[in-house]
Amino acid sequence: MTRTTPPTPIGVAVSTVIFRLRRDSDDARIELPLVRRTRDPHEGHWALPGGWVDPAENVDATASRTLAETTGLAPSYLEQLYAFGDVGRSPGRVVSIVYWALVREDVTAATEQHNVAWFDATDLPDLAFDHNHIVDYALWRLRNKVGYSRIAHGFLPDRFTLAELREVYEAILGRRLDPANFRRQVEGSGTLIPTDDFRTGSHRPARLYRYNQDVELADRGPLPQ
Amino acid sequence: MTRTTPPTPIGVAVSTVIFRLRRDSDDARIELPLVRRTRDPHEGHWALPGGWVDPAENVDATASRTLAETTGLAPSYLEQLYAFGDVGRSPGRVVSIVYWALVREDVTAATEQHNVAWFDATDLPDLAFDHNHIVDYALWRLRNKVGYSRIAHGFLPDRFTLAELREVYEAILGRRLDPANFRRQVEGSGTLIPTDDFRTGSHRPARLYRYNQDVELADRGPLPQ
Repeated sequence: MTRTTPPTPIGVAVSTVIFRLRRDSDDARIELPLVRRTRDPHEGHWALPGGWVDPAENVDATASRTLAETTGLAPSYLEQLYAFGDVGRSPGRVVSIVYWALVREDVTAATEQHNVAWFDATDLPDLAFDHNHIVDYALWRLRNKVGYSRIAHGFLPDRFTLAELREVYEAILGRRLDPANFRRQVEGSGTLIPTDDFRTGSHRPARLYRYNQDVELADRGPLPQ
Repeated sequence: MTRTTPPTPIGVAVSTVIFRLRRDSDDARIELPLVRRTRDPHEGHWALPGGWVDPAENVDATASRTLAETTGLAPSYLEQLYAFGDVGRSPGRVVSIVYWALVREDVTAATEQHNVAWFDATDLPDLAFDHNHIVDYALWRLRNKVGYSRIAHGFLPDRFTLAELREVYEAILGRRLDPANFRRQVEGSGTLIPTDDFRTGSHRPARLYRYNQDVELADRGPLPQ
């Protein structure tokens, strides 16, 4: 009720779960970057990138800044995920406002920094703090959201083949999808626009598509974009 | 990155947007309780119920506690909405972790407390801080969520008629729905179970339904229930 002074200071931090798609020869998977901690608590453990909220900085700006500082990345999608505020999740009392971000394959080359490494999102080591739990929640949100928004686009360049789009869905959902059914569903959704160009290479030429930009990547409602 | 000490203290508060359904003779609307502030900043303005996070208390628990203290309510649904953390939203730097809650009609009688009043959610006065913006966002989330979860149930008692359920949807969406189409859609969804009982009164007897409890009110994923 009262808005005088808070009882005792609580630390306010931001962490970001950053997902990218990693393609192998015949497979794709979701990866995320982690930072190795160089001091206690949890020295030597891997943790989500993040940092303290600067008192002169909006929390959204802290998310973008710490993401750029620790990984060099500018995401194609950045959204607040959840504020984790349980007692005991950190030695001092810390509330972490967690964001999640998607980055496109073509920008991930710039991310090789000291103490930063990319991990398979579904096969992580024991992370610092409650970060395993946070990643689980972010993966759940990603899987959910892919069903009702064009969030998969956040992993792809501007133009892509249907096979590449299907690969994104398969990596997120963790299962194979029937190519013919998938084509029918996305063509029926009205969210894709075929271009006149084709991807050529070792396979049969495949038409390139782009997303209909009139459809928002994900509806954020009245929140600032 | 560092987890040593935060730069300067930031206040961490919780606010809650509590929605209930208010029925008039031939209409229903969404209402929420506000608390009149008895001190600066914004003395005399109406504000969302809430309070500071106690350092020894989980943030979720702060939401439940402040909700009970200020309104006497125990909600049928309580979920974290968003953490609002812009600089300048309060004279001191305050991050507000906002929850939203639904209460059933049958429990709202207990809420008449000093300095608390219920307002039409779509016709609010000028609230303290950024609380008008927060309510707008909560209403947007409610309208969105009613499309893909059984959140409307949070406003209703255990058993209800289809007309009562339609009234909830109409109040949330702010428009009339065709009764025959509505009946077809909910009966086809498999989320309702007809009972053998009927509501009698001035109208033709109407069958009472209940929600299929095998379907979660809203999927919260791996977050604690």
